[in-house]
Amino acid sequence: MKISLLLTGNELMSGDTVDSNSAYIAQSLKDLSLMPYIKKVVGDDLALLVSSIQELSAVSDVLVINGGLGPTVDDLTALALSKAIDSPLARNADAYAKLEEWANQRDFMLTESNLKQTELPTACDIIENPVGSAVGFHCEFNGCLIICTPGVPSEFKPMVENHVLPLVRDFGGIHVKSHITRLRLFGITESGLQDSVNEKFPDWPADVELGFRVQFPVIEVKLATVGEQLLELNHQWTEKFKAVFGDYIIGTGGTRLTQALNSALAAKGMTITTAESCTGGKIAAGITSEAGASNVFEAGFVVYSNRMKQALLNVPEQTLDTHGAVSEATVLAMAAGALAVSGADVAVSISGIAGPAGGTKEKPVGLVWIAWGTANNLIARRFFLPMAGKGGGKREGKEARTSFQNTATSIATDLVRRHVLGLPTNISYFSELKKKSL
Amino acid sequence: MKISLLLTGNELMSGDTVDSNSAYIAQSLKDLSLMPYIKKVVGDDLALLVSSIQELSAVSDVLVINGGLGPTVDDLTALALSKAIDSPLARNADAYAKLEEWANQRDFMLTESNLKQTELPTACDIIENPVGSAVGFHCEFNGCLIICTPGVPSEFKPMVENHVLPLVRDFGGIHVKSHITRLRLFGITESGLQDSVNEKFPDWPADVELGFRVQFPVIEVKLATVGEQLLELNHQWTEKFKAVFGDYIIGTGGTRLTQALNSALAAKGMTITTAESCTGGKIAAGITSEAGASNVFEAGFVVYSNRMKQALLNVPEQTLDTHGAVSEATVLAMAAGALAVSGADVAVSISGIAGPAGGTKEKPVGLVWIAWGTANNLIARRFFLPMAGKGGGKREGKEARTSFQNTATSIATDLVRRHVLGLPTNISYFSELKKKSL
Repeated sequence: MKISLLLTGNELMSGDTVDSNSAYIAQSLKDLSLMPYIKKVVGDDLALLVSSIQELSAVSDVLVINGGLGPTVDDLTALALSKAIDSPLARNADAYAKLEEWANQRDFMLTESNLKQTELPTACDIIENPVGSAVGFHCEFNGCLIICTPGVPSEFKPMVENHVLPLVRDFGGIHVKSHITRLRLFGITESGLQDSVNEKFPDWPADVELGFRVQFPVIEVKLATVGEQLLELNHQWTEKFKAVFGDYIIGTGGTRLTQALNSALAAKGMTITTAESCTGGKIAAGITSEAGASNVFEAGFVVYSNRMKQALLNVPEQTLDTHGAVSEATVLAMAAGALAVSGADVAVSISGIAGPAGGTKEKPVGLVWIAWGTANNLIARRFFLPMAGKGGGKREGKEARTSFQNTATSIATDLVRRHVLGLPTNISYFSELKKKSL
Repeated sequence: MKISLLLTGNELMSGDTVDSNSAYIAQSLKDLSLMPYIKKVVGDDLALLVSSIQELSAVSDVLVINGGLGPTVDDLTALALSKAIDSPLARNADAYAKLEEWANQRDFMLTESNLKQTELPTACDIIENPVGSAVGFHCEFNGCLIICTPGVPSEFKPMVENHVLPLVRDFGGIHVKSHITRLRLFGITESGLQDSVNEKFPDWPADVELGFRVQFPVIEVKLATVGEQLLELNHQWTEKFKAVFGDYIIGTGGTRLTQALNSALAAKGMTITTAESCTGGKIAAGITSEAGASNVFEAGFVVYSNRMKQALLNVPEQTLDTHGAVSEATVLAMAAGALAVSGADVAVSISGIAGPAGGTKEKPVGLVWIAWGTANNLIARRFFLPMAGKGGGKREGKEARTSFQNTATSIATDLVRRHVLGLPTNISYFSELKKKSL
């Protein structure tokens, strides 16, 4: 079944509004194992709307039109549809009743422009909008189901779930239920994961559709099957997937990395402290962005200068002199100091060269040392994050720095999560990082 | 001049990626007083790409194609363009030279799939890509300028500024020069600013186009005039605008709030320390996200528990007992402690209730105290950020918490910036915050 989207509105064309509706409906359509075929966006241009409706309905089984249902002269969807399918506009009694009800509940006086919202092509049936004043509507034209929906996301989203998907399902005769397993992975790239799947599972069944969704810093993996009879197959391949990629799995769908760390700490009844140089507080900010962080987070230290590493965390001056601020000895001393000063159970510390300046031949921009563990069991690892080095321009320098800090923060968060859970901490993070590893 | 966009990629159709490139180019085209005509998005579907190129180039003067330039089999743009304009693919010597240079600089071995990126329609000239491996390319077909650009935003954006806009300008013979003044404001909402402009400047001239662009946490205001003869008018109204909204202006176009703070500190030769409770390190992370932060940032303390406020920052136990952790006395003591321990010149401290739990009737979720200043001149203010309270669901809870933390971080950053610059710190932040103020 081919589903196309037609979005309308000058605000979408001008870039003043970033369209999130089409991503939303696309994600929802995944539950019917459907993906949009064509998406077209046009401004408030009647002729272009009419031709676009005709063009898209001719090549699609379903056309969802979004936007242009409001009360102003810019809102042209009903008129355009009327012309495109040659069905005259007339007051729709259901739409009028709904609008009256909506206005009464809010003590609103209906205006002429409100009434315009009740003038629909006679071929159309309405779709209720419990949130706003504009009802949706739908009709069939040359075998294509056309559905008109409001552009305001808070009105559009419930209409998709409650009306658009059921209409599409009925129209397409889709009565089988999808079963979707969602897993979250950290530490592997999308392409690395795809390559590994191809290699480890040459016999991956076509019936278990595998999908990836990058939600930095994690990847969400979806295993989808259609119909009750494939439920067992879904479970079976989920287990096989877990057996191979278990090292990278941090939880089920929706789990954030910081959430996974905090849950691990809470489960073990442990508290954490952070000692950050190059990430400047991002590790602490991540942990404390989660509700309930006060149960597991003790204290965070952002020690940028060597003087502060000494003064706050008792990193020996000799360690800094001999090995430098970006070294195994220094991050181990930072972690030990943070544990001693805060009294927390577990620490993570980090020191690296975020750039754009500050790199040397021996210690280039992108080098980072991370330590983690408990007072009597502190471990450190070195990483080289090449994204810090790329780009020469001003803007790129900032983006590269941010990218370095975000990736370093995520790896540090994951390492201490693994430590708390007793998982291996020597896994290869992001195969592509190895290519240019020092 | 009609400019259309064709975006390609299954990740755009599936909703896994929200397209930000088309909003970016649309905003940039405003500088040429242009708005995109049609935007079409299709998956990695060769036939659909070919027909879309033909269709859009027939009705547009310029067609910008975005995405599909990568090395994998899904990347079909060059092939589709070749078929659409009937120009055979062949190795482009310039593209090959650029790719070789790119790979050499990074010690990468070129693979077969990399080489695919150098096979372009013979009718095309390349566009340099200083950031990534995929060059852009352009050609004319039936009077339409077709420009192919990479989908990765960090590659696309500089290419738009450096190559796409100049190509469009030349092609369209757009020689009148727009003059654009960009100012960055913090502390006022977009609608509040629009209302104020309407009220204070009923005579705002139509020739000076006023545009707003929200880039959280700041608003970028654009004053645009077309032609040299209006340059003076632009300057004149820029000065009038500054006279009224000067309190909120943090810099010219592109300035980030953290950048403005760091510049202010650097100009005064001052260093800063942060003491954070409810923002959990976000203020420090913001300051240190800027290159060169080590010149101005001394140390950051994330003191979540009362115990840590006492142990690390010497907040008196009696202060915490009498006034509580979220109080004027506590944030003043936190700031004083951070100054004493770090030796920095200026401090900013914060304590509040981020939620979703932890609120009481006297101290509800959303309440926050911020202190800032130097050792002998510390000031504190209380705010109530209502966004922390909204939402009941799980996701809303997290979003509300994040929104509270981000807004509190921005206000704290701005207050200490104002203090350093000697600007008033008693301005009304965000008129809507007052509505629910305690």
